Amino acid sequence: MVARWDIGDFVDRTIGGWRSQRSVHHLAFAHFEAVTSTIVVSNISPTDERVIDLCKIYDCNPDRVVSPFQMTWNGESDWDGEISQGQTILVPIPTGQYQGKLLRDQGYAETIPAVGEYYFTEDNTFVLTTTYDRAAAEEKIWFINDNVRCRVSLIKTSGGSGVVTASFSSEIRQN
Amino acid sequence: MVARWDIGDFVDRTIGGWRSQRSVHHLAFAHFEAVTSTIVVSNISPTDERVIDLCKIYDCNPDRVVSPFQMTWNGESDWDGEISQGQTILVPIPTGQYQGKLLRDQGYAETIPAVGEYYFTEDNTFVLTTTYDRAAAEEKIWFINDNVRCRVSLIKTSGGSGVVTASFSSEIRQN
Repeated sequence: MVARWDIGDFVDRTIGGWRSQRSVHHLAFAHFEAVTSTIVVSNISPTDERVIDLCKIYDCNPDRVVSPFQMTWNGESDWDGEISQGQTILVPIPTGQYQGKLLRDQGYAETIPAVGEYYFTEDNTFVLTTTYDRAAAEEKIWFINDNVRCRVSLIKTSGGSGVVTASFSSEIRQN
Repeated sequence: MVARWDIGDFVDRTIGGWRSQRSVHHLAFAHFEAVTSTIVVSNISPTDERVIDLCKIYDCNPDRVVSPFQMTWNGESDWDGEISQGQTILVPIPTGQYQGKLLRDQGYAETIPAVGEYYFTEDNTFVLTTTYDRAAAEEKIWFINDNVRCRVSLIKTSGGSGVVTASFSSEIRQN
C-alpha cells in the first residue's frame, strides 16, 4: 500500500501552476462542453484576514486551520467562447486525520461562500461533498503522479439523487 | 460505511443498456474528442465456449470464473465522424474477496486478448490495471446511483509514468 496523505500532504502537491482540460457533460441533453484553462494554486497564511473572516462566517476556530490556499483560474469554454476568470480561498479544517471541513469564499455550483466535507480514501483520493440550497456537488481528485492529476465533479439535484452535470478535468503541471 | 461489493455485485449492477458520453483528452496536444455511444452488457454462461477458450489462453481454471459477461458498443466520435462498433467478452477470476484477474478477448489499448488485475476500494470503486507490450491502461469505474456511473480511463506509456490520454465516460442507464 502507498503511504496515506492528510490534507497538508494534498495541498503541498497541489501548489503550483496547472494546465487544465475540462469536459463537461450536460446529461439531460447529452451535450459536451470543453474548457481549457490555467490554474495557479498558492499557499496563504493562516492569519490572512480572508481566512479569519471565513472562519467567522462558519463559526470555526482559526487555530484549527491547516494549509489554507488560494486558486486563481483563467479559462475559455468552447460553448459560448466566454473567458472565465476567478479566484477563491480554500480553508481546510481537519476533524480527523483523513477528514474535515473545507471552507471556501466562493462555491463551485453557486457563487456564495460554502462549506464542504472532505475525506481521503485509502488510495489517496480526495473526496469533497458540498450541499447548497438548490444543488449538491461531489468532487473527487487524485494524482496519477506528481505532475498529472484528475478531477471528477458532479452537480446533483439538492436531494442528491439526480445528476445534472458530470465533468472531468485532466490537469498537467506547468513549469 | 456502505456495504462493500465483490465482482458479482458489480457485474449485476452493470448488466443492461447504457447511453455513454465519453470525452477523450489527448494530453500532448490538449485536444478534446467527444464520443457518444450505446453500450449493452449481458451475462454469459461460465461454460460458454469463448470463456473456456480465454481461460486456456491464460492458463486459468474455468471453475474459478465468476460472473462472465459481454459488452457490445456502438459509438460515434466527433473527431473523425467514424462509427465504431465492437464486442468483447470479460471473464473475472477472483483471487480474493475484493480483487482478482480480468481476462478479455479484446483489450482497450490494443486489440489483442489481455489480462488485467482488478480490485475494489472501500467505497466500491472498481480499479483495473492492464499492462500491454507498449502501453498500460488504468481504469476506475464507480456508480453514483443504480442508473448513473462514471468511468475514468488512462492510457500510459508502458513504463507507467507518462499519461498519453485520459478519458471520462458518464453512463446513464437506458430503459
